[in-house]
Amino acid sequence: MTKNVRVIVCGFGRVGRNFARLMDSKRRIVARRYGLTLDLLGVGELNGSVLSASPIPPSELADYFEAHGNLGNYPGSGKTGWEGADIIREIKEADVFVETTPTNIQTGEPALSHIHAALSRGMNVVSANKGPFIRSYNFLKSLADSKGTSLKLSAASAAALPILDVAQTCLAGAEIHTIEGILNGTSNFILSRMRIGDEDYEMALAEAQRLGIAESDPALDVEGYDTVNKLALIANVAMEANILPEQISRTGIVDISAEQVRQAAAEGKIMRLLGRAVMDQSGRVSATVAPELLSKNHPLASVDGAEKGVTFTTDTMDRITVAGGKSDPKGAAAALLKDILNIYRAP
Amino acid sequence: MTKNVRVIVCGFGRVGRNFARLMDSKRRIVARRYGLTLDLLGVGELNGSVLSASPIPPSELADYFEAHGNLGNYPGSGKTGWEGADIIREIKEADVFVETTPTNIQTGEPALSHIHAALSRGMNVVSANKGPFIRSYNFLKSLADSKGTSLKLSAASAAALPILDVAQTCLAGAEIHTIEGILNGTSNFILSRMRIGDEDYEMALAEAQRLGIAESDPALDVEGYDTVNKLALIANVAMEANILPEQISRTGIVDISAEQVRQAAAEGKIMRLLGRAVMDQSGRVSATVAPELLSKNHPLASVDGAEKGVTFTTDTMDRITVAGGKSDPKGAAAALLKDILNIYRAP
Repeated sequence: MTKNVRVIVCGFGRVGRNFARLMDSKRRIVARRYGLTLDLLGVGELNGSVLSASPIPPSELADYFEAHGNLGNYPGSGKTGWEGADIIREIKEADVFVETTPTNIQTGEPALSHIHAALSRGMNVVSANKGPFIRSYNFLKSLADSKGTSLKLSAASAAALPILDVAQTCLAGAEIHTIEGILNGTSNFILSRMRIGDEDYEMALAEAQRLGIAESDPALDVEGYDTVNKLALIANVAMEANILPEQISRTGIVDISAEQVRQAAAEGKIMRLLGRAVMDQSGRVSATVAPELLSKNHPLASVDGAEKGVTFTTDTMDRITVAGGKSDPKGAAAALLKDILNIYRAP
Repeated sequence: MTKNVRVIVCGFGRVGRNFARLMDSKRRIVARRYGLTLDLLGVGELNGSVLSASPIPPSELADYFEAHGNLGNYPGSGKTGWEGADIIREIKEADVFVETTPTNIQTGEPALSHIHAALSRGMNVVSANKGPFIRSYNFLKSLADSKGTSLKLSAASAAALPILDVAQTCLAGAEIHTIEGILNGTSNFILSRMRIGDEDYEMALAEAQRLGIAESDPALDVEGYDTVNKLALIANVAMEANILPEQISRTGIVDISAEQVRQAAAEGKIMRLLGRAVMDQSGRVSATVAPELLSKNHPLASVDGAEKGVTFTTDTMDRITVAGGKSDPKGAAAALLKDILNIYRAP
């Protein structure tokens, strides 16, 4: 006997469809190890959605979307013209709302409205979107607490790298004094190429773009904005900080010269774009994002290439580092599934 | 309003007393952040115990034990001649049993009997002892499941390094294919000294003994037995393996020469005593403990000195490494508290 968990998904891009396929490929292990059956009852998308009283086959729906580009005419349960908000409003009952829509990082929309509506209707929420939480984590968490529902955002902070789980579960009861993070894979890839491949910034960036690691407009990554946003989110969850991105001082890697990286290496140091949040004695958190020279025995010195990693320094558990993890849409989908399993598992 | 959690502790050595002091120093944060009040109702010790219907002040009891060497005459609640088993049997009701007695690693006793009795009485169990679980994890976990209680052993696997939490929570839903671990701080310290300090094995061991890192009889550590025991435990929990220590091939570090370590370093490799468990296609787990040469970009290559670390390779989340963490009695006490908080927290 398994417990049925009714799931709706908003956003059927690469993360959403990978999550749907994972619902199928992990069906047996989810039943056997966690005692759960995940039933997909609805998917919201811009150009038409699906909503059904009985479970929809997830991979079949992903195939359909890839073939047709919309869900509105999906046989039996397609809803032409409906969007995510319509699904959240119209569904009779659901247990978990999975948020994966493309999000405006400034406003957090449309995910912010989706999550607000889903929590208000008493659903647990798991999100691959960080947008809504950078400015509104405390507000949404309070709403979830008042409704007795769970709000989990592993996939939003770093896909499969379990930064928030480590902070909240593995370090429960400890006070986190410092967070240091390599949070942007593109910047770390570029700095690693400059050191190991002896390239200058422009060459390393071009290589990152050729490999699909960097966007054609890389500003968000290399100017440190992405690291700022992730650091704000992580500090707000892990340190109960109340920090906004504009309160974090920011220096990117665009002005780093090949000479600087070589000079650092000659001195036995490694340059990383580091997000750093520090809690002072009074509990106030300050945060910076900037290239830093790490000594070779710093635990983040070995986090090379496009990998990410975070080091937490605590009062009772000393320093703990977690690194690695799949950072693509499949990794994000795995993190969404993980969050759902942890909501329903016995401790 | 906090929820009161009634706690009894068996074993009032360094880990048990550190845990008691942590109950006091973390009282406010445990109430505010986790909504819990931990009430110490009993402590079992060889030369007399305490048992009380109302909460005992934990630090005061630790002070008393340090002054008197036993608990039997503790004013009001001392029980001369009682041991841990008596407390478990005689207590009216308790929510959590904390196990920290010195344990025979072969038989798992007396902790095995304590834990069996506590689970049978419906208590949640958190243990800093690995002894009972190396051979009997599956049995005790089944008992806990049948009673609807929790069994958590973070402190038993590596004190504050959250190996089991990462495997069970951070990687939920993923299949762990390989576990690689630097699980013994003493061996890692010796190998690090041989590489960095250019010492031979005997010199590095003597230094480890001088610093209190190695025991006067270091066989358990340097011959790989400790790594074997921890690896069996971790594989059984994280991979649902059913492996016994004697099924793990074992090579220690006692025959490693300074020349071998130097030669490896010259080739850009780093020698580590590695515990390795691998799951094959059919789900069967095989395990080895032996010195291995890691390339410098292996995530465990940078885990230096007395630190520990584990790398999990999974199907859906790729490779995730966790390293560091306080490995003394204070770290173990922090892990015991963490396990209790995670039993009672909302997901």
